[in-house]
Amino acid sequence: MKKNKKLSPELALGFTDRKGDQLIIKDRLIEIIKQNFQLYGFEPLETPGFELSENIGKFLPDEDRPMSGVFGIKEKNQWLSLRYDLTAPLARYVAKNFRDISRPYKRYQIGTVWRNEKPGPNRYREFTQIDADIIGTTNIYADAEMCMLMADTLVKCGLDKDRFIIKINNRKIFQGILEAFNIKDPKQSMTILRSIDKFQSVGKKGVLELLTKGRLDKSGDFTKGANLKKEDAEEILALLSADSIVRDKNTNQSRLSTNNTLYKIENKTYFEGLNEVDKILNYLNQNEDVNIMSTDLSFKENKINFQMDLSVVRGLEYYTGTVMEAETTDTSFWKSSGDISAYKNIKLGSISGGGRYDKLVSRFLKDDYPAVGISIGLDRLLFLVNEKYKDQSTKNPIIICVFNQEYYSKYNEILRLLRLSNINSEIYMGDGNLKSQMKYADKRNAPAVILCGEEEIKSGNITLKNLKSGDEISLELKNLINEVKKLI
Amino acid sequence: MKKNKKLSPELALGFTDRKGDQLIIKDRLIEIIKQNFQLYGFEPLETPGFELSENIGKFLPDEDRPMSGVFGIKEKNQWLSLRYDLTAPLARYVAKNFRDISRPYKRYQIGTVWRNEKPGPNRYREFTQIDADIIGTTNIYADAEMCMLMADTLVKCGLDKDRFIIKINNRKIFQGILEAFNIKDPKQSMTILRSIDKFQSVGKKGVLELLTKGRLDKSGDFTKGANLKKEDAEEILALLSADSIVRDKNTNQSRLSTNNTLYKIENKTYFEGLNEVDKILNYLNQNEDVNIMSTDLSFKENKINFQMDLSVVRGLEYYTGTVMEAETTDTSFWKSSGDISAYKNIKLGSISGGGRYDKLVSRFLKDDYPAVGISIGLDRLLFLVNEKYKDQSTKNPIIICVFNQEYYSKYNEILRLLRLSNINSEIYMGDGNLKSQMKYADKRNAPAVILCGEEEIKSGNITLKNLKSGDEISLELKNLINEVKKLI
Repeated sequence: MKKNKKLSPELALGFTDRKGDQLIIKDRLIEIIKQNFQLYGFEPLETPGFELSENIGKFLPDEDRPMSGVFGIKEKNQWLSLRYDLTAPLARYVAKNFRDISRPYKRYQIGTVWRNEKPGPNRYREFTQIDADIIGTTNIYADAEMCMLMADTLVKCGLDKDRFIIKINNRKIFQGILEAFNIKDPKQSMTILRSIDKFQSVGKKGVLELLTKGRLDKSGDFTKGANLKKEDAEEILALLSADSIVRDKNTNQSRLSTNNTLYKIENKTYFEGLNEVDKILNYLNQNEDVNIMSTDLSFKENKINFQMDLSVVRGLEYYTGTVMEAETTDTSFWKSSGDISAYKNIKLGSISGGGRYDKLVSRFLKDDYPAVGISIGLDRLLFLVNEKYKDQSTKNPIIICVFNQEYYSKYNEILRLLRLSNINSEIYMGDGNLKSQMKYADKRNAPAVILCGEEEIKSGNITLKNLKSGDEISLELKNLINEVKKLI
Repeated sequence: MKKNKKLSPELALGFTDRKGDQLIIKDRLIEIIKQNFQLYGFEPLETPGFELSENIGKFLPDEDRPMSGVFGIKEKNQWLSLRYDLTAPLARYVAKNFRDISRPYKRYQIGTVWRNEKPGPNRYREFTQIDADIIGTTNIYADAEMCMLMADTLVKCGLDKDRFIIKINNRKIFQGILEAFNIKDPKQSMTILRSIDKFQSVGKKGVLELLTKGRLDKSGDFTKGANLKKEDAEEILALLSADSIVRDKNTNQSRLSTNNTLYKIENKTYFEGLNEVDKILNYLNQNEDVNIMSTDLSFKENKINFQMDLSVVRGLEYYTGTVMEAETTDTSFWKSSGDISAYKNIKLGSISGGGRYDKLVSRFLKDDYPAVGISIGLDRLLFLVNEKYKDQSTKNPIIICVFNQEYYSKYNEILRLLRLSNINSEIYMGDGNLKSQMKYADKRNAPAVILCGEEEIKSGNITLKNLKSGDEISLELKNLINEVKKLI
């Protein structure tokens, strides 16, 4: 570092600072989420940021190069990676501790994850993830429980029931459809999956292109297609827009249908997937505040709305059964919203997602540890419910102004009185005059200042100035706490 | 990854997992600390884990090689570093936002930091740091406030007043002593500082060696000395064991003394340092629950004990004035203590430390942003107060056992009842029989299980089994909540 040249205090692209009220609300949400996870019987886990690279592998969507998207560090005889999610480290943890943990093992984890991807205006390379998982069971009711946990957590955080839908699908249905079309190449299958996963962003026409010859986007980038015949691609797309499960009276098998058009596909994987979705929806339907949109197509405002949606496949490679996703129904996210300026001009979609991944632990152990989990995007949730927490009493302190350093013992007496009553407060700690002190109180958004100069010291009274109304009152010290409590 | 070879689910050295009750207590402590920081008028800040390497530099103790000890990643045209503390990123944040933040700016931050040092059995390369800082003021009362905040936070976390002492010193005293001995080489000064910093670990004899020719430790490693003359080293050590500040009647200057031996050093820096310590101690002494050990050598059990200790210099290079350190008075940390198995056989010393650093922001800005801050070591604190939180009601769930999948709607009814009353609870979600379910409840340390089989379904009653006493009671559903509340 050269002596005279000053450094530029910037951050690298894809990283950001967060502050003040935004963090107070974030803490509140995290607390609500933790309490709810514990209510559902989950216990906390904290794994480190760094894992041995080979142990967490690379299961990110839209990336085919090994290890790209991950921050890696080479040590003498090993590579370390910063975790890119909380699921891969969980698989490592379960494998390491399988003798000690309960079976099933239910844990939640809230932590930072890193993705070394191309940063954009609102795409960060570091963010908070909130996960809950049930490991070591094939029980389909665990999948239903996770759907319920997802919904209940969002509601408890302040998201109204009419602001989101939880969409449910099953990878086995998708797998069964591929089998029916005799598609066996895993790479082609994955390309088809990722094409369908883009439904929200590129629409039906775009997906059709991706499933066949490929797609040229507006920027001129060409994405290679899955090379399906056009008829097959169209038929698969028609299947994926099925909106209900009906029971075939002849065979007693569940089948997909759209407007009474029944789709006939005959294979075990397909039926398994359909039965699992069916079981989950039936289980959820036992709860009186639940509305299942696949049997009743109307959306209900005072209920939690679940919907079967075969176009929700989720991009992660490791899912093997149920996949679910909470999507906001709001379409008006273009407006700016207070502190969360990072989200201006952004349309939010998925707030939470998850699914069943039965093979992740078997990378380490002979035994399978089938698992199902969900992940909540804290930043998006924070943006959606921010308004609800805005009017809550802020935590800004009462400021005791300093007229003369001789009076510090008096100021200290006032300070201790306030703090003993749990009122956030401070003696002004800067070097400025009274004018600077008032400017400081203003910048801190302090509810009030306490003024105690020569006059007050003589009279024994102190002055409390309400910074919202501008009112000043003179009072005895013994009445201070009562007056301050009226203010905050 | 080879298909047939299983991965070994280990962590790299220096990283660890944390779980269950240990995390519940950790969360509790963090919540108490945040509340207290807000009570003192601090607001939260969250900076990212990654900073541009040149912006956070390298101020770790005991390291002379640039960037060693830090996890760094090279990008196209820049280096990124994972933060090694929360102070260097704060300086960057203040410089970036100096137009928007209040002056003084009081912030707290709780976050992970990384140090790429040689890991040991209890030396981690990743840990949680808790910081509070006041930026933009030279006011010495800010230093006193930070001492008080340190003490009050430890007490509120459950550390008894007789289990720690807060030691206070000032780098200017040390600097003044160096000036008196005509030591001007910054490198030699730093070597002397770091030698004195080792007082606790190598003792007086060891420090004397480090100050002169150097020291050979038991492992055979030789540490080069500061090359002082033996008489000078001995005199400096005598000065550093001074235990009180007295006012010289002739000059009205503060001076150091030990057993009425007055040390006469005449220079501005030295007097400034002494005056600052004196002011802080006087300010602290205004609080009725404070005992200042430099004026009253006895330690008081029901008071917060502060002590001037010139041997506490702290190893960080950036301190310019006040330095302080909270040390535990416990010497019995050899015993194992419950969950915190990581700390077996470890003697704890410093729990919290801090000081004034007036030059850190001026690496970015022309203007100085003088600052003072503290840092709390959460792991050590957690270890010290762990016992106090152990008997608190744990958060383990009540388990509803599954006799038959046909009864799920009944189980779901019971579950919703419990959860509506905020009682942590779950339906067993595994695939096992009743015996496995009881084993599971035991492993989860569940307070009770609810049994509802064919018999109960017929009778309409359910069975609640207390897992601590083994008692079973049969009850109507409407009485369940009352009975469960007696249990937990």
